[in-house]
Amino acid sequence: MAQLSLSFSAAFLLLMSCPSWSKYEPNWESIDSRPLPEWFDQAKFGIFIHWGVFSVPSYGSEWFWWFWQGQKIANYVQFMKKNYPPGFQYQDFAPMFTAEFFDAKHWTDIFVSSGAKYIVLTTKHHEGYTLWGSKYSWNWNAVDVGPKRDLVGELSTAVREHSDLRVGLYHSLFEWFHPLFREDAANVFNTTFFPNSKTLPELYELVNKYKPEVLWSDGDGNAPDKYWNSTGFLAWLYNESPVRDTVVTNDRWGLNSICKHGGYYTCSDRYNPGHLLKHKWENCMTIDKRSWGYRRDAQLSDFLTIEELIKTLVETVSCGGNLLMNVGPTHDGRIAPIFEERLRQVGQWLKVNGEAIYNTTAWRAQNDSLTPGVWYTWRPQEKTIYAIFLSWPNTGYVVLNEPLPNQGQTQVGLLGYQPLKWEPASPKGVKVFLPQLTVSQMPCSWAWTLRLTGAA
Amino acid sequence: MAQLSLSFSAAFLLLMSCPSWSKYEPNWESIDSRPLPEWFDQAKFGIFIHWGVFSVPSYGSEWFWWFWQGQKIANYVQFMKKNYPPGFQYQDFAPMFTAEFFDAKHWTDIFVSSGAKYIVLTTKHHEGYTLWGSKYSWNWNAVDVGPKRDLVGELSTAVREHSDLRVGLYHSLFEWFHPLFREDAANVFNTTFFPNSKTLPELYELVNKYKPEVLWSDGDGNAPDKYWNSTGFLAWLYNESPVRDTVVTNDRWGLNSICKHGGYYTCSDRYNPGHLLKHKWENCMTIDKRSWGYRRDAQLSDFLTIEELIKTLVETVSCGGNLLMNVGPTHDGRIAPIFEERLRQVGQWLKVNGEAIYNTTAWRAQNDSLTPGVWYTWRPQEKTIYAIFLSWPNTGYVVLNEPLPNQGQTQVGLLGYQPLKWEPASPKGVKVFLPQLTVSQMPCSWAWTLRLTGAA
Amino acid sequence: MAQLSLSFSAAFLLLMSCPSWSKYEPNWESIDSRPLPEWFDQAKFGIFIHWGVFSVPSYGSEWFWWFWQGQKIANYVQFMKKNYPPGFQYQDFAPMFTAEFFDAKHWTDIFVSSGAKYIVLTTKHHEGYTLWGSKYSWNWNAVDVGPKRDLVGELSTAVREHSDLRVGLYHSLFEWFHPLFREDAANVFNTTFFPNSKTLPELYELVNKYKPEVLWSDGDGNAPDKYWNSTGFLAWLYNESPVRDTVVTNDRWGLNSICKHGGYYTCSDRYNPGHLLKHKWENCMTIDKRSWGYRRDAQLSDFLTIEELIKTLVETVSCGGNLLMNVGPTHDGRIAPIFEERLRQVGQWLKVNGEAIYNTTAWRAQNDSLTPGVWYTWRPQEKTIYAIFLSWPNTGYVVLNEPLPNQGQTQVGLLGYQPLKWEPASPKGVKVFLPQLTVSQMPCSWAWTLRLTGAA
Amino acid sequence: MAQLSLSFSAAFLLLMSCPSWSKYEPNWESIDSRPLPEWFDQAKFGIFIHWGVFSVPSYGSEWFWWFWQGQKIANYVQFMKKNYPPGFQYQDFAPMFTAEFFDAKHWTDIFVSSGAKYIVLTTKHHEGYTLWGSKYSWNWNAVDVGPKRDLVGELSTAVREHSDLRVGLYHSLFEWFHPLFREDAANVFNTTFFPNSKTLPELYELVNKYKPEVLWSDGDGNAPDKYWNSTGFLAWLYNESPVRDTVVTNDRWGLNSICKHGGYYTCSDRYNPGHLLKHKWENCMTIDKRSWGYRRDAQLSDFLTIEELIKTLVETVSCGGNLLMNVGPTHDGRIAPIFEERLRQVGQWLKVNGEAIYNTTAWRAQNDSLTPGVWYTWRPQEKTIYAIFLSWPNTGYVVLNEPLPNQGQTQVGLLGYQPLKWEPASPKGVKVFLPQLTVSQMPCSWAWTLRLTGAA
Repeated sequence: MAQLSLSFSAAFLLLMSCPSWSKYEPNWESIDSRPLPEWFDQAKFGIFIHWGVFSVPSYGSEWFWWFWQGQKIANYVQFMKKNYPPGFQYQDFAPMFTAEFFDAKHWTDIFVSSGAKYIVLTTKHHEGYTLWGSKYSWNWNAVDVGPKRDLVGELSTAVREHSDLRVGLYHSLFEWFHPLFREDAANVFNTTFFPNSKTLPELYELVNKYKPEVLWSDGDGNAPDKYWNSTGFLAWLYNESPVRDTVVTNDRWGLNSICKHGGYYTCSDRYNPGHLLKHKWENCMTIDKRSWGYRRDAQLSDFLTIEELIKTLVETVSCGGNLLMNVGPTHDGRIAPIFEERLRQVGQWLKVNGEAIYNTTAWRAQNDSLTPGVWYTWRPQEKTIYAIFLSWPNTGYVVLNEPLPNQGQTQVGLLGYQPLKWEPASPKGVKVFLPQLTVSQMPCSWAWTLRLTGAA
Repeated sequence: MAQLSLSFSAAFLLLMSCPSWSKYEPNWESIDSRPLPEWFDQAKFGIFIHWGVFSVPSYGSEWFWWFWQGQKIANYVQFMKKNYPPGFQYQDFAPMFTAEFFDAKHWTDIFVSSGAKYIVLTTKHHEGYTLWGSKYSWNWNAVDVGPKRDLVGELSTAVREHSDLRVGLYHSLFEWFHPLFREDAANVFNTTFFPNSKTLPELYELVNKYKPEVLWSDGDGNAPDKYWNSTGFLAWLYNESPVRDTVVTNDRWGLNSICKHGGYYTCSDRYNPGHLLKHKWENCMTIDKRSWGYRRDAQLSDFLTIEELIKTLVETVSCGGNLLMNVGPTHDGRIAPIFEERLRQVGQWLKVNGEAIYNTTAWRAQNDSLTPGVWYTWRPQEKTIYAIFLSWPNTGYVVLNEPLPNQGQTQVGLLGYQPLKWEPASPKGVKVFLPQLTVSQMPCSWAWTLRLTGAA
Repeated sequence: MAQLSLSFSAAFLLLMSCPSWSKYEPNWESIDSRPLPEWFDQAKFGIFIHWGVFSVPSYGSEWFWWFWQGQKIANYVQFMKKNYPPGFQYQDFAPMFTAEFFDAKHWTDIFVSSGAKYIVLTTKHHEGYTLWGSKYSWNWNAVDVGPKRDLVGELSTAVREHSDLRVGLYHSLFEWFHPLFREDAANVFNTTFFPNSKTLPELYELVNKYKPEVLWSDGDGNAPDKYWNSTGFLAWLYNESPVRDTVVTNDRWGLNSICKHGGYYTCSDRYNPGHLLKHKWENCMTIDKRSWGYRRDAQLSDFLTIEELIKTLVETVSCGGNLLMNVGPTHDGRIAPIFEERLRQVGQWLKVNGEAIYNTTAWRAQNDSLTPGVWYTWRPQEKTIYAIFLSWPNTGYVVLNEPLPNQGQTQVGLLGYQPLKWEPASPKGVKVFLPQLTVSQMPCSWAWTLRLTGAA
Repeated sequence: MAQLSLSFSAAFLLLMSCPSWSKYEPNWESIDSRPLPEWFDQAKFGIFIHWGVFSVPSYGSEWFWWFWQGQKIANYVQFMKKNYPPGFQYQDFAPMFTAEFFDAKHWTDIFVSSGAKYIVLTTKHHEGYTLWGSKYSWNWNAVDVGPKRDLVGELSTAVREHSDLRVGLYHSLFEWFHPLFREDAANVFNTTFFPNSKTLPELYELVNKYKPEVLWSDGDGNAPDKYWNSTGFLAWLYNESPVRDTVVTNDRWGLNSICKHGGYYTCSDRYNPGHLLKHKWENCMTIDKRSWGYRRDAQLSDFLTIEELIKTLVETVSCGGNLLMNVGPTHDGRIAPIFEERLRQVGQWLKVNGEAIYNTTAWRAQNDSLTPGVWYTWRPQEKTIYAIFLSWPNTGYVVLNEPLPNQGQTQVGLLGYQPLKWEPASPKGVKVFLPQLTVSQMPCSWAWTLRLTGAA
């Protein structure tokens, strides 16, 4: 078999060579030099969908397989022992991934109503099961086993029908239990059986077939980007792929590339630094605080409240990030009403306050230096400052320490309401007087936005 | 076989004979003369649980079996054709009724948090499957097939651990497809094979074993109460059963008995007359507007909002009814978060406003004759009037046309807040001035209660 | 519930009363006085079929349920633990009883080819599951759960299409785990909930619906015939039932009735006394030595050889019995080829030797007093003696000690061959000279028949 | 993706290059020059086992998948429609391939009792499912899905414990539905994605791991041996593999190689030419005439009789072939009794007649030119001729036209019996007088062997 490993190395070399006309070369310096397509920073808010075979046991976490058989965590082991026959394996869940209620149009309607601008679907999580009929994952994909449908295709098509929504695809580089990955790992990644016969062909297939505008990579499996030939693939993605002009990707392309190389940064899960970053970033987080995949054992108290969600959105956008809010559909293809409720509530809020979110940029101050719970965004062209405050003060006014008003020019309004009165605060800033509104008169709930023009 | 039918008639006669010491005789006049145990009217709010094999297909309605195979409604037929093998029958769903997540203590915690005072579980719906291991329903009950647990026993025990909660059991007289019921029906109910070998033994078993304080009968199958020997059974229930002193039952004991005989009236599902009735009644209704059983196809828009739920509670109690609010657990034993959320919200509201609900009685006026959305309750001993208003007026005051104030004596307060100012309204009634509160200052949401003392 | 038990007793009394025109009264003396319908003794050879939910685990024995959960025999417990999920119960096997290959015509063809004259199917074994859609066994029968077909009806119809075959139905009085039977047993059979609501209605239904000519009762559950009201039922069967003229039944109608009362005797399973009985009897036995139901764990060595089967047939018939040879079909409705082979081989043998079996009667001697392995039958009207020998002697002749030849009159032939020479044996009997035949010249294999006429 | 196809070509070139010390070169001339290891011709009789996912539907044929979904043959399509849910796919059968009764030792005992000398197991049929946990067939193999056991390993180990038995492994080159094979086929086999990533790695893995002494290749999928790089692989197998000294392979290594190149010839299934071939060959055939895999729908008449099996064995060996007799185990791991019976019967016959089969060679005449049904084998060293006759003559003698006797030297015996008398036949040959034996005196059944020494 020695011959075969040579052949894979040969393949690797060939993949490294790039035609001379290429704009980007397969190294990080060149890859990192590509400007981020503009649409992404303008979009601000996307929805992440974790769906896969893990949605069948639907217990504990989408890492179910690993926790059960990799780490052998007691409650996972117990859950299986109690509910399944001896010898039952993770693969036996796949036929129960039925998706009979999955209606991509209906999902998309919910997503649209949430105000999201892009959707990122896990086309393959670390379990290796592909939600499309990959040629490189025969009999371990959604067309062959389980739903018998091209879930990636159905959702992509439905999402694209909304001109306002973009298709994003999540893809895991490594797979916990793939025997070729384990072999490479045992070889300290000096062999590349796995990326050459699985990861890379799959990535090319995915991009060519579904033309995603976000390619959300994950799961380096502790292997360096060299092993994955990430720069080789990204050079192709940026130079030649059908989405080379608009595609956005993230930073999870190999051990140590995270928060350092690739497209925008994700750093860690639920990354929310609270201050401005120099590089575009994204805060991917979950409505169910404890899991990305659907968990039947989730209690109401495990779901973030709408107040917490709005707060996270506001903080993230103020600091220059995008928010990618995750929902976990069920094995039979439904988005549970509790998720639908949260999403629609975000959408209600954005209907009033979207002006302060979409197409904005971080302002010179991210949050107010005096009043807690006030976050800023900024529209440079309109020279408009937005101050979003997370609790309605009982005092009847808000003091903003950061904006510098200009008597005669500065105008202040409450989004969804009328202009407000203000006066200069002392020693600096603006004191904005809020109206006395009953519950039914409020323009929105959970957080409110002051728009300031003519201030600096 | 003629002999057997005679024997059943003989049984029937024997059941009719009552010892001389009995308080209640097996006729409606006597049965109806029993006063309703007091606790029920004081409780006001209960939770109804529809759970059974129908929770497995979990599609459309808990009447799934009948709609599919009785009425052959197209979308039910289609659903089965599309998702199940040819020849699959309703009975094949039973082994999938697994209840592995069912934790009676956890359910009860949720119920307690909702403020409910009694719980009514479907121990047997029209499908005939009993949630306890009935001797008269061998191999068609939850101990033999499906969960392999005594669901009635587990829930009863957990509920009883809360001194504030009472156990209620729903039981269907007829069964859609039981061959003996169908035979009796074909005989125009001149034979009683079914009640004598199934319904009645089952009812005795249920009461003796689980000692319910509500026995919620349903499903007369268009047969008269004579056929069911309802008065015979009720005489036993009221005279001899272990719960004879406290048990409450309803009015669904045979064709034409509904809204006329038995215990409290339920009249029709979701009965909410909007005016006072002379006889104690109950409004049984559902959070999912379109089904009693859990439906996977329910959308967020199918669930009543918390505002609608509070409104229904208030209207019902004002008109002398109890509210029995239904949730449908899943086949695997969970109360979905959307239900949990609604229930906990009701509980939050009752924490502030419970004084105006529990132990109250209907007042002379049910709702205000001038201001819409204002409903009254009354505590005779404290001579306190409660006026619950469903929307917070933007005017800053509420005019109550019904209470007659007494200058110097009348005091008005907002539950959860401090005393309010008021003045006599003209030509009559009270004008109550509301405070100007921000969202965070409000004592509660969705509806608010004015307490009036010293008024008439 | 006391009332109900009275009612059942009332039913019992009513069942005991018989109209005055009845031929048979409900007591053993009268019942036992009925002559056995002639056809049965003439038929000699029947096929027994054990089929039911036990055909699904198909392991160990048709007593699987009892051995596993009643007696908790280690290898049964282990088998379940190893292959099924925790909490899996016997009832969960029922949906897997699919019978998709069951073709009653095809089965009947095999039975006809075996030479059998009657077929006895287990319509309900001790598990209680009925192979027809009994009204008294709702959701625990073959129409509601599993095959969703009327297996009794299909087989009866197919069998009846052969004028030469008769329909027999096996029925178990008791059921291991029926809660009402267990209750009666706990009451030392002083209550009769079970026979009155289950066994008796079921028996009437079975006879009225399928008109069996053999009613093969079994399983008294250690209860006396009084408990089962056996004589009451048999009086009805003999006086009024649609098969009163031709039906044959056996002796398993209550503790102590076996080998003593009822119709023909079965005494014990595989009863083969080796001598003549005064009362008609039947040897019910199995091709698979260790089980009546199909066992997947049966090895070739567990099946009786054709030589053993023919020997048993010959011995049984010589001693006045009928042979009821059992096969166990698979859960999917097949008669495995090894059974088919044995049955067809018996048929081949009977094609040549049937004259010595059907319509014969026991002779004055059952087997030869000198030569081992020689068994006699007799046709009184033709005054023909048949001597069946089980091994072909290497000596070239057979000495029969019992028949008394009459020089000049006595003629001896080999069935399927030509007349043979003989001479008187000394001191008595006949010495018959066998032809020298090669394998291909033999009229049959396994056993051979000498026909003697003109002897005594 | 163009790069990848180049890489695979590169791999292909590398595989073609062989080190200089190699004995065999990767071309047919060299490969074909290898002498067949002696053991194979001496063994004569092997057992073929067709086992796989097709054993689950167990209907029609082991080509079930192809007949159903490739050719859409009506009765296959109907079978699925009738018995499985809509959308059920072949892959869904895999979890039902349980093998819980599989006991390799028990199987081997049966094989030993049959007199076979080698066992050939389908490690992967055209369905692609591997009976071992191949790294190149993740989640489509017996360790990941179904039995969760290494079936190849268990059987190999058990077989090897018998010093008299050799391990043979069947392997299909192509797979009906593998997407990479289909892609190559669409490219008219100008790409080699499939052999390079699947077939070849798998073959190396199989040989290295299980060290088979027969490698039974099959299924070229209409692709030439170049595509499969068969000579490259065979060069490795013959030069370097751990079984290079003893391994035997067949001729199914690519379109047009059959009956022409490779190891021994198999030509077509059930190949039985009836005359001597110059090249060693094998007759692979089935006990169930119509299928290689287990078929639940097989009737007794579908199984070859023991007479037919012995005849085929005798004819095959006389003409220089080996016989590979196939059995199809069940999905749950059993060899059905009908197969066991046939195998043990062959073993009984070989116990008496094995001398005329094992270690023999074809004689100058294959069958007798005068007497039909007489076949010859020959032991050159002992100069012994064996004449096997398939029916026992009623004449009392057999005339052999081919052997030339030598008065005084020639001795004739019946295997399992004593010497026989003979006389020269006219015009030539030998007339052998058979003894007059009763059934119980016969040394064996079905066919008998005359041993001639001192004849030519």
